[in-house]
Parts: sequence; structure tokens; C-alpha cells
Amino acid sequence: MVKFNINSNIWNVLCLLLLFAILSVLLTVESPKDLNTKKTIHSKMISRQLKTFAEIPNPTQQVLENNKPRIKQKEIPLIYAITPTYYRLTQMADLTRMANTLRQVRRLHWIVVEDWTSTNHHLHEFLVYTNMSFTYISQATKESTNASKGNDQKNAAIQWITRNHRWGEQAVVYFADDDNAYDLRLFEEMRYTQKVSMWPVGLTGGNKAETPVVEDGKVTGFIGWATKYRVFAVDMAGFAVNVNVLWDYHPMLFETQMPAYTCCTAETKFLEQCCTIEDIEPRADNCTKVYVWHTKTGKPKYVKNEARLDHIYV
Amino acid sequence: MVKFNINSNIWNVLCLLLLFAILSVLLTVESPKDLNTKKTIHSKMISRQLKTFAEIPNPTQQVLENNKPRIKQKEIPLIYAITPTYYRLTQMADLTRMANTLRQVRRLHWIVVEDWTSTNHHLHEFLVYTNMSFTYISQATKESTNASKGNDQKNAAIQWITRNHRWGEQAVVYFADDDNAYDLRLFEEMRYTQKVSMWPVGLTGGNKAETPVVEDGKVTGFIGWATKYRVFAVDMAGFAVNVNVLWDYHPMLFETQMPAYTCCTAETKFLEQCCTIEDIEPRADNCTKVYVWHTKTGKPKYVKNEARLDHIYV
Repeated sequence: MVKFNINSNIWNVLCLLLLFAILSVLLTVESPKDLNTKKTIHSKMISRQLKTFAEIPNPTQQVLENNKPRIKQKEIPLIYAITPTYYRLTQMADLTRMANTLRQVRRLHWIVVEDWTSTNHHLHEFLVYTNMSFTYISQATKESTNASKGNDQKNAAIQWITRNHRWGEQAVVYFADDDNAYDLRLFEEMRYTQKVSMWPVGLTGGNKAETPVVEDGKVTGFIGWATKYRVFAVDMAGFAVNVNVLWDYHPMLFETQMPAYTCCTAETKFLEQCCTIEDIEPRADNCTKVYVWHTKTGKPKYVKNEARLDHIYV
Repeated sequence: MVKFNINSNIWNVLCLLLLFAILSVLLTVESPKDLNTKKTIHSKMISRQLKTFAEIPNPTQQVLENNKPRIKQKEIPLIYAITPTYYRLTQMADLTRMANTLRQVRRLHWIVVEDWTSTNHHLHEFLVYTNMSFTYISQATKESTNASKGNDQKNAAIQWITRNHRWGEQAVVYFADDDNAYDLRLFEEMRYTQKVSMWPVGLTGGNKAETPVVEDGKVTGFIGWATKYRVFAVDMAGFAVNVNVLWDYHPMLFETQMPAYTCCTAETKFLEQCCTIEDIEPRADNCTKVYVWHTKTGKPKYVKNEARLDHIYV
């Protein structure tokens, strides 16, 4: 027992030193309670800080989520608007006005065909300025052609489409004269055409309008001019066809040589190649709304003093 | 010394117990080093988390910053486009086409004045659909009026402006016929008119265009019809005036009763009330560009079979 017989005084001092050491250690480290309080304050500060931040979602996830509810741009069928044109005093005015309309239509490719041996650089500059998706080509009317104006140009545009259209992409073809008036709703009406769709056209055929007659959602006839000898009594502005029709019934073209006594049957002859009356998908609220007018721009008065206006292009 | 003579064995047991207690306390609390490591990990985690967040700036600050580099919407002068119209077969077509153009012009208020004792509800519905800022009022042509068509309607619109324009707001007034063709650049050309601005108008006055002649940035004359007896040989579509002119030279109105032998002097008579040739601010690249055409919509062919088209409004 000798080993343990240490002086009790020394023990006392040692014990006091130990207690002092313990106290000092305890004072330097934080108590669990204090630590929790600090943690709570810190979390609150961070969460307050986070409130001023907006979450940036994971980019991959974002793409997936955005595509889920919305239609992909590529899934919206493209509209090929084919416009034959020719030089005249009102050409620039008509195309300016038309561009103002077409510019507002999503997924539209404008094919402008000049009735001449070359394109017009003023017009080309204008088309670039419009910032639209366009193709500008030239196709002079052939000498042998005696049919309606613009048929050679429309055929050139159809050939351009069959050469350049991306296989499998949904698209519709529409023939849009440059002096007609278009309500923007027209383009959404025609966009999802499966084969051929039709709607009324205002101010044509000697009537207020020319229109398919719809009974129980099916077209049964037409109100318009010469419905007796036109299977499809429809104006050029009154129908659209799916781009696939151009391949399924190839070659789908406009007639350019016709017997002298026929007139104004370009539309019906074109559609008779592919369709019957049963194929027609009526649009524009069962053909009761007018979203396009076959307007004509009046010829301006006699032009004189042209030399004095050399510095401006009209 | 009796008090301190405690058995050393007891002391030893006490000391061991104390050491055990100290050790257990030290094990439950975290060392400052551990705490720092934990804090570092936490900060790193938070900073990583913060990287997926974008800062939402203080809203007040954001408004201030946005306004610094950009022009306030209110600082862009407003355009009052005044369009007199009247019922005819092509009215809806013309206004549809015009709305397609004007819809794309920022800060434009369209004042459409029907030449009738009441407004047309089809047209009103259409104007609502366009989603534009517009006012649609009616003003029948007075019996005493023998001047150009539309003068009573333009005066009604001027009176509407003087009653409704917000004092101090920058604005210009432009008379826009509903069958003209407008390039969008025209509106930016006219927007900052100080008093009166002018530019060429295509297809008017028997010329390709009617235009002010500009020498050294000042207008010295006009190329057009009847420049000898018209101080301002300008078409209605060829000028814009600052809205302040309407007050500074009040009452600024169009003449409606004119001697029988005068014709087509509405524009010059209106402008002679406020301006001289020195006041003209030439636009459109010193009047060498045509951004507006005085087109006329051709009258459609004879209308028959109207009864069969009762179900549609053209």
C-alpha cells in the first residue's frame, strides 16, 4: 500500500488543477445547446438568403419539362406560301403589305416566283429586310402557255418544293396571290390539313363570297360562279393541300395549255388530279367565316414625269 | 489539519471518477477543430447549392437599372393613326390588311371613324380581336360638306384627340387611309416629328410618286401634280404633325365647304394653317425612299345571289 500513500495536500492541489483545466476546456468548447442555437440562426439566415434567389433547374431536366407540355417547333406543320408575282407599278406596295401579314405567321416559308428571266434586286433586298424565311426564284411565263397568269410560276414553286422539302416533315402548300387580303386566323385554319382543306373566299366569282356548302360537317357542293362545270368551284386562295399530295399523285402540276374556250378552271383541274369532293376538310367554322378576300389592287393613274423621279424606286 | 486528512484511497477513487467525468464530457462535446471542419463542409455545401440559384435583384433596384440604358415606353412618342372608313364590300378586307400592318407598330393608337350615324358591330368585334389600342367612333358626313371624302371624319378624330390626349405626352398625328400600303419603317420615320414632317408617297398624283424636293437637308419644292397652286403638294399619307400643333394653331381642322371649282386641296389647306415650307422636316433618307403607297382597292365584280350567303359576313 506504500505506492498509494501520497500526501493528501498534493492530491488536493492536483484535484484543483484538474478542475481548473476541465473548466477552462469547457469554456473554450461550445455547449451542444449553444451549438444548436447557432445552427438554427445560421439556417434561418441561409433560408432568408435563399428567398432572394430563384432556382435554376437542371438544364437537361428543363429541356425535358419544356417539351412535355408544349409542341416542339418542328411538330407544327410548315406552311409553304407560294406567290407568283410580276413587275408592275403596284408590285412593291402589294408585296410590302403581304409581307406585313405573313411575317406574323409562325413556321411559314414564303416562295416568291418572279415572272421574268431574272429576279429583281430591289425586291430581293426587301425580302431580306423582312427577316422572313423565304425563297425568291424567277420563272418566265412560257410562250406556249395560254392558261391563267401565274401557272408556270406555281409549277416552278411546286418543283422547288419536291426538290427541297425535307422528307418526313409535316407541311401544307398554299397558293397566295400578292394582292389578296388575309386574316391571320386563315393560316392556323389550314395548317393541319391532312389531304385538302377548303374555306370561303370573299369578293370572288361575282359574289360577296364563294364558299363550299357544308352539311353535317361534310362538303356537299359550292356557292359560286359556274358550279355546274367546275367540280371544285373554289378560288386559288380557298384551299390548301398537304405536301404529301405532291408525291402521292406525282406529277401534280397546273395546266398551262388549254383549249381556247375554257377559262378560269385552273383550281378545279389541279385538284381533280388528287381529290374528290369527299376528301375536302371544311374549315373556318364549317365555312361560315371569311378569313381571305380576293381583292385586286386598282391600276394607278397614268404615269408621267418619270425622269424626274429617277432617284427613288417605287 | 484534521479536515484535510482524508484517506488517500478515497481521493484516488474520487480523482478517477473526476477524470472519467471529464473524459465523458469531452467526448459528448465537439472539439473546435471538428467544429471548424463541419462548418467548412456546410459552407461548401451551401455554396454548391447557391450555384444552382440565380440572384433575384432587389425589385426597386431592377426598375432603376432597366430604365437607365433603355428608353421608357412613355418616352417613345405615341402615334395617333386616324383612319376614316365607310361601308363597302372591301371594307373588312382593307381594314384586316391594315390592322396586320399597324399591329406591329409600337405605341400606336388607332382612331377608326365610321362614316355613318352608328358604328358597325362586326367591325368593332374585329377591332377587339386585333388586340390593338384603338378608338372606334362614328361621324356621318354632313349634308353641307362638299369637300373630299373623309374630311368630317378626320375632324371628328382631331376633336377626339384634343379632348382625350394626356397633356404633356409626346405624340404625332397621322392620317392613314384604309386602302394604302405601309412599310413598317414609315412609322419610325414619323415618330419624332417636332412640328411637321414629310416624305414621298408612291403611286399618287399621276406620277410614280409625289415627293418633296430636298436640297441641303431643306425642302425647296415638290414633284407632283399641281405644284403651282398647292403650297404643300403632298398626299394625305405623306405627312405627320406633332400633336401640339393642334393646340398651337387651334382650331386646326379640315375644310368641309369649298368653292365648286377647287379639288383635292384638303392637305395643303390644312397645313397652311400652321406651317410654312421652312418648317418641313424631310424624312425617308432625304425623301429618296418610298415607304407608303397610295394604293386603291379595285371594286369587286357585280354582286348577285346575296341571299344564299346570309350565313356569312364578308
